[in-house]
Amino acid sequence: MRLSQTFTKTTKSTPADEQANNAKLLIQAGFIHKEMAGVYAYLPLGLQVIENIKQIVREEMNNIGGSELIMTNLQRQELWEKTDRWNDEVVDIWFKTELKNGSKVGLAWSHEEPITDMMRNYISSYRDFPVNVYQFQNKLRNELRAKSGIMRGREFIMKDLYSYSRNNEEHDKIYSQVTEAYKRVFDRVGLGDITYVTSASGGAFTKYSHEFQTITEAGEDTIYVDKEKKIAINEEVYNDEALAELGLSKEGLEKTTSAEIANIFSFGTEKSKQLGLSYTDEDGQEKPVVLGSYGIGITRLMGVIAEHFSDDKGLVWPISVAPAKVYLANVGESEAVKNQADKLYEDLLKSGISVIYDDRDTRPGQKFGDADLMGIPYRVVVSEKTLESNGFELKARTANDTRIVNQEELMKTLENKS
Amino acid sequence: MRLSQTFTKTTKSTPADEQANNAKLLIQAGFIHKEMAGVYAYLPLGLQVIENIKQIVREEMNNIGGSELIMTNLQRQELWEKTDRWNDEVVDIWFKTELKNGSKVGLAWSHEEPITDMMRNYISSYRDFPVNVYQFQNKLRNELRAKSGIMRGREFIMKDLYSYSRNNEEHDKIYSQVTEAYKRVFDRVGLGDITYVTSASGGAFTKYSHEFQTITEAGEDTIYVDKEKKIAINEEVYNDEALAELGLSKEGLEKTTSAEIANIFSFGTEKSKQLGLSYTDEDGQEKPVVLGSYGIGITRLMGVIAEHFSDDKGLVWPISVAPAKVYLANVGESEAVKNQADKLYEDLLKSGISVIYDDRDTRPGQKFGDADLMGIPYRVVVSEKTLESNGFELKARTANDTRIVNQEELMKTLENKS
Repeated sequence: MRLSQTFTKTTKSTPADEQANNAKLLIQAGFIHKEMAGVYAYLPLGLQVIENIKQIVREEMNNIGGSELIMTNLQRQELWEKTDRWNDEVVDIWFKTELKNGSKVGLAWSHEEPITDMMRNYISSYRDFPVNVYQFQNKLRNELRAKSGIMRGREFIMKDLYSYSRNNEEHDKIYSQVTEAYKRVFDRVGLGDITYVTSASGGAFTKYSHEFQTITEAGEDTIYVDKEKKIAINEEVYNDEALAELGLSKEGLEKTTSAEIANIFSFGTEKSKQLGLSYTDEDGQEKPVVLGSYGIGITRLMGVIAEHFSDDKGLVWPISVAPAKVYLANVGESEAVKNQADKLYEDLLKSGISVIYDDRDTRPGQKFGDADLMGIPYRVVVSEKTLESNGFELKARTANDTRIVNQEELMKTLENKS
Repeated sequence: MRLSQTFTKTTKSTPADEQANNAKLLIQAGFIHKEMAGVYAYLPLGLQVIENIKQIVREEMNNIGGSELIMTNLQRQELWEKTDRWNDEVVDIWFKTELKNGSKVGLAWSHEEPITDMMRNYISSYRDFPVNVYQFQNKLRNELRAKSGIMRGREFIMKDLYSYSRNNEEHDKIYSQVTEAYKRVFDRVGLGDITYVTSASGGAFTKYSHEFQTITEAGEDTIYVDKEKKIAINEEVYNDEALAELGLSKEGLEKTTSAEIANIFSFGTEKSKQLGLSYTDEDGQEKPVVLGSYGIGITRLMGVIAEHFSDDKGLVWPISVAPAKVYLANVGESEAVKNQADKLYEDLLKSGISVIYDDRDTRPGQKFGDADLMGIPYRVVVSEKTLESNGFELKARTANDTRIVNQEELMKTLENKS
């Protein structure tokens, strides 16, 4: 994309009520727009980051046999009453509205109930398994406080996967497959080193559920981390009994602040019984289906990445999620400089390398500042100086120095990193 | 995808309250699920059709300089009050809900107000134009009746583009660019021949707006079509004066039922004045911005395609939007047949040809029936008979006869059609 034709602009000002570093940076860089507390629009650069994250998650979900679908935002009261989750005192983050005929409908904060109900159309025999479905959905949650930028939204994008299994053994298998897939996701977006599978409170079916907690000061959770074992325990279940059960000892644990970027949860057969989802097994017996639920907060993940990969100059996106790999800027207004920059822009696009081309008629300091603020992994400059040297000025966002490289070397460097 | 591993199934039954042919067919073929009247989930095959349509629209919007973003579902009351569109008596399809603090919020049925308000951050000078932004958004509209399947949803996907121009001349230019882009979209999805740019009621700024109306018995509109001039006039503005202004004569017009699959609309400077969006022109004068709004109902478009391209056996997708190009089925259970079908499946995928592989252990009649019901453009069969002839049985969904072709000819046929 050419910045001269892009409507977004970087800015120094942020909304007076914005407290979160992730949202401040993303607003300043022109990635998001704040509509109200906890409700953000995603502008072209922000949307590209979202799509990059989604694609990584999609690949890993498909890789373990997930089928993508999209459920609805409007939900039926009767389904949630069957599981006792319609009542606002039980689930305190519902947004509800009503149809013209006066009947209440819920706005999607999760989808266990509608998906499980729908599966009654598709699951009736042991031959119908396994069933693992997922979606990227715009969730609405009526949060009392929404002060963490895109890390806690009243409206946010979630990837939620639901597994339907014949028995606990099959459930445990997909549960651990999802766990491994999530680890790959967080490795690929650059957070693997600081993300811990964390035991947290469970439910009727299992004593513990599992969260993926990423260490960040911007988080709202407190966990105790065993860095050697690469696991953690959430403060909410931190006690002697739990430590013993999880094989952890107080001495090996570090207390830290973290953000929950994903969770995985076993519902057992409770919801299937409540909603009437059963199947006939090989022995002719009718049995309830075992349900698992697995969420990744896509926009929250973007917020955590923004918090973690940033410095005093702005964002520092990992290549895997960056809105573009290269920030190309022409410096100087001669035709020769412009022509060479135009040509390189075309060459990069032809090689499949994504580029933000700063072809604006503005001063170099602004261009360099914006390149840093937007956090694009590589900056390439075309100037009178680089023309003279028959090369291009290349700088990684994380490097202190620039270097002059010829086009062959430039393309090789940029093509190799992915 | 392998049907043996796909959770959806074809069915003969449809919900008792379902009246629309498009929804009946799509439910029977396993493309959608009905959550409530006018509210449908999109299962893997249905989602693929949606994504194919979106990609065609995206290419055409990018082609005229559109930038993709995504606005929010939750909307602020104050913005819609400024334009007098918050009141339920003015806009009778609002869904509304409220935050914990009791303030009302609207659920997105359109986005002129929030986008125009947001643009105050990005538009201030004549140098900031043109600005053309679009999104694919889940819209919610509280329709009194929702009996047309996915052609009129309480929840549906819309592509909406908003143009911001300095003056009427620039506005007229983008208005006609969008018109042409929409024509290309409808050509590409196969509806070009039966879709008419139709004059309809305008607003404060223009006497007429323009709709794209597709001739179909399933539609809810009535238009008068001039087939020679390739334009039409909506019944709502059909009178002698309008005919004269549009250069149409009664004799040349055919009355017909149609569905509005897109509309384009000029708002002039009204909303910009109400919401305070202005810019400083080259002459130093502050001027209001000219707004245009352009919608395509993506899910409605899918419904119209399903209505139009179907027969007594099921759906008949055009290749451009089909969930897969090929329906591959093995008939007979010998290892040789299975191996050859497996191999062809891999070969097709390697060649970038999308395939639904019916590898289920079921009778041929079921496989052929499902291939027809799902409406996949080409059916390829591997059987003992085809093994003997060293070929494959190929049949287009629209053809009556099968023919035996060798692999080279098969690949050539399937690669050429796109």
